[in-house]
Amino acid sequence: MGFNAKDFRDLDPGDRVLMGPGPSDVSQRVLRAMAATCVGHLDPYFLEVMDETQRLLRYVFQTENPLTIPVSGTGSAGMETCFVNFVEPGDEVVVCVNGVFGTRMADIVNRLGGRLIQVDAEWGRAIDPEAVRKAVEGRSPKIIAVVHAETSTGVLQPLEDLSGIAKESGALFLVDTVTSLGGAEVAIDKMGIDIVYSGTQKCLSCPPGLSPISFGPKAIEVLEKRKTPVVSWYLDMTMVQSYWGAERKYHHTAPINMIYALREALRIIAEEGLEARFARHLLNHKALVAGVEAMGLSMHVPEAERCPTLNTVSIPEGTDDLKVRKTLLQEFSLEIGGGLGALAGKVWRVGIMGHACRKKNVFLFFGALESALTAQGVKVTPGAIEAASAVYASA
Amino acid sequence: MGFNAKDFRDLDPGDRVLMGPGPSDVSQRVLRAMAATCVGHLDPYFLEVMDETQRLLRYVFQTENPLTIPVSGTGSAGMETCFVNFVEPGDEVVVCVNGVFGTRMADIVNRLGGRLIQVDAEWGRAIDPEAVRKAVEGRSPKIIAVVHAETSTGVLQPLEDLSGIAKESGALFLVDTVTSLGGAEVAIDKMGIDIVYSGTQKCLSCPPGLSPISFGPKAIEVLEKRKTPVVSWYLDMTMVQSYWGAERKYHHTAPINMIYALREALRIIAEEGLEARFARHLLNHKALVAGVEAMGLSMHVPEAERCPTLNTVSIPEGTDDLKVRKTLLQEFSLEIGGGLGALAGKVWRVGIMGHACRKKNVFLFFGALESALTAQGVKVTPGAIEAASAVYASA
Repeated sequence: MGFNAKDFRDLDPGDRVLMGPGPSDVSQRVLRAMAATCVGHLDPYFLEVMDETQRLLRYVFQTENPLTIPVSGTGSAGMETCFVNFVEPGDEVVVCVNGVFGTRMADIVNRLGGRLIQVDAEWGRAIDPEAVRKAVEGRSPKIIAVVHAETSTGVLQPLEDLSGIAKESGALFLVDTVTSLGGAEVAIDKMGIDIVYSGTQKCLSCPPGLSPISFGPKAIEVLEKRKTPVVSWYLDMTMVQSYWGAERKYHHTAPINMIYALREALRIIAEEGLEARFARHLLNHKALVAGVEAMGLSMHVPEAERCPTLNTVSIPEGTDDLKVRKTLLQEFSLEIGGGLGALAGKVWRVGIMGHACRKKNVFLFFGALESALTAQGVKVTPGAIEAASAVYASA
Repeated sequence: MGFNAKDFRDLDPGDRVLMGPGPSDVSQRVLRAMAATCVGHLDPYFLEVMDETQRLLRYVFQTENPLTIPVSGTGSAGMETCFVNFVEPGDEVVVCVNGVFGTRMADIVNRLGGRLIQVDAEWGRAIDPEAVRKAVEGRSPKIIAVVHAETSTGVLQPLEDLSGIAKESGALFLVDTVTSLGGAEVAIDKMGIDIVYSGTQKCLSCPPGLSPISFGPKAIEVLEKRKTPVVSWYLDMTMVQSYWGAERKYHHTAPINMIYALREALRIIAEEGLEARFARHLLNHKALVAGVEAMGLSMHVPEAERCPTLNTVSIPEGTDDLKVRKTLLQEFSLEIGGGLGALAGKVWRVGIMGHACRKKNVFLFFGALESALTAQGVKVTPGAIEAASAVYASA
């Protein structure tokens, strides 16, 4: 095999700035918390940590839902949890698809034997509530599912109308908040969201590995009336909730140190306050857009539908996408994302999330991008810094 | 809500010694590696880390299987992965049940619509290969599944005969190595194991959160011939393998920092060497047993079937189980485990795993246990230290 233990060196990932679609930069406070001594999953100290984490998650989700916990897997495990606990074979499920993550939802519904009713929109545009109303007419779907912030396109979906349609049709309203939670308002009780999941590695600025979820009272009622067992043992919330609830019944070993990290990341959010945090994301987003447009580039998503945390910039003609991203990584230690699926090669995905959502990073991005484009002979209009500065000055 | 960010203090889990059924003690090296800067899941540096982690996992599993990766969830997610990728509705699956984790396997097979053929043994005894042979007679099950080290009972299952029966009957041999990998020999190629999973928080001494798995060539062939899609999107190895393989196709965001931790934990194992590591576990196990028996207590499992990494000690009559464990935790900051399921209140589960598998901990356990029992008026014969010392001296 030629295997030698000495071939493996000390870890040294350097000092990347993460402005891709996630993970985002993780603060030293969170990294230090994650490295605290591991204790048992039924240790009295850890049970306290669990309770605190739940309280903090309720704060960030703006909810009173008792069942508000981090699922022991990444955001996609959260997505699966939200469908596998509610979709039984033959159930009608409306899924709104305008990007990769809506597509993934539809895939999961099919695997579970649900009857998929798909409502499409262009990749880069919000879902039209009228299209959903039409799809629902004469039916009574069990769930209407939509992505709040489509990480693949940079669209922020308005939720009010869709929530109303779900209520009228008696459906549970299921929302993906992976890229919005902690960066844009996700007030699930006020918004009438029954089932929600998120991820830790976006605007919460915690390493990837957990997926916060919350189920409201209507969802719990449906869960309790299931006719078949949940097909996934690992994600079966009828059991997992007994561990996170008062019973403390062992289900699986919780990822202790990841939960330490999440608790600290949420605590940082609570210290900043949600309102200030959303305002910070919006301000940096506006500055970023102003700079990008001043450079002569354009945003992929129309202004009214833009997600403040994930910005899709159209790649100018004649640009070598890969080479630009490689230059950013090698010369500036700066990560941005490429396009996914239908948008591969067409957009860059620039995240300004959580700890990474800072003026210094916005300006670093302008400098790095202008430098990389100019080196390729792609014309860039000077003035990004001035345009962004004007936005910051007016705040 | 009475919510105040200042209610949440700095994390301070103290300095537990973890001699329960897992998690086990995590070394400072692993904790430091886990706290390295988070980078993107497609960052060239991280891709290297992934390759190295796979090489190290192959070393620890003693395999050449290309598909050898950590699943992004705890050990139970690994268990689910191993069944959900292979069991299609109607498939016959033999599951050996002699504890909690065999029971869980059977539960999962049922959820997936498999035809369960259950082979039972007493909790605390190994599975009799003849019983499996009988169950298989006249059938051709797709899988024969067994737990190598039953964490709930402390039994180490001999695998040779079962592997032979699987081969003869054309079944895939699926083994749970959660509590053995890195502490007792798990040479999957040599042992004819086709499908295997483990956990990071036992003898690998890494925090919980990942589940190393490996699929052999026969298993891959079966996977490729599936008639139905894998019901779990998250754990679908037909897709996940494209991310860990040469294609690097995005599936879900890998838990970056957990993989840093696993890589370091595996590197520590490679530095020690498997043979030395297994010998260390066996020696501390023998010393622990000698001490326990010298105290006048008895082991739950017959000598020939004992697992060296997880020791079940029968609780002496008249003992307040909970009070003993509370004393150990409060006065000695030492965690041991209580019994699970049928063995609740009947045994203590004493892990000596990975970083925690040390003479100093074995002696700490004797002191703490004798002290706690004596305080309760339970009679203990002196001499544990002497008996254990004799074992260490003879090594």
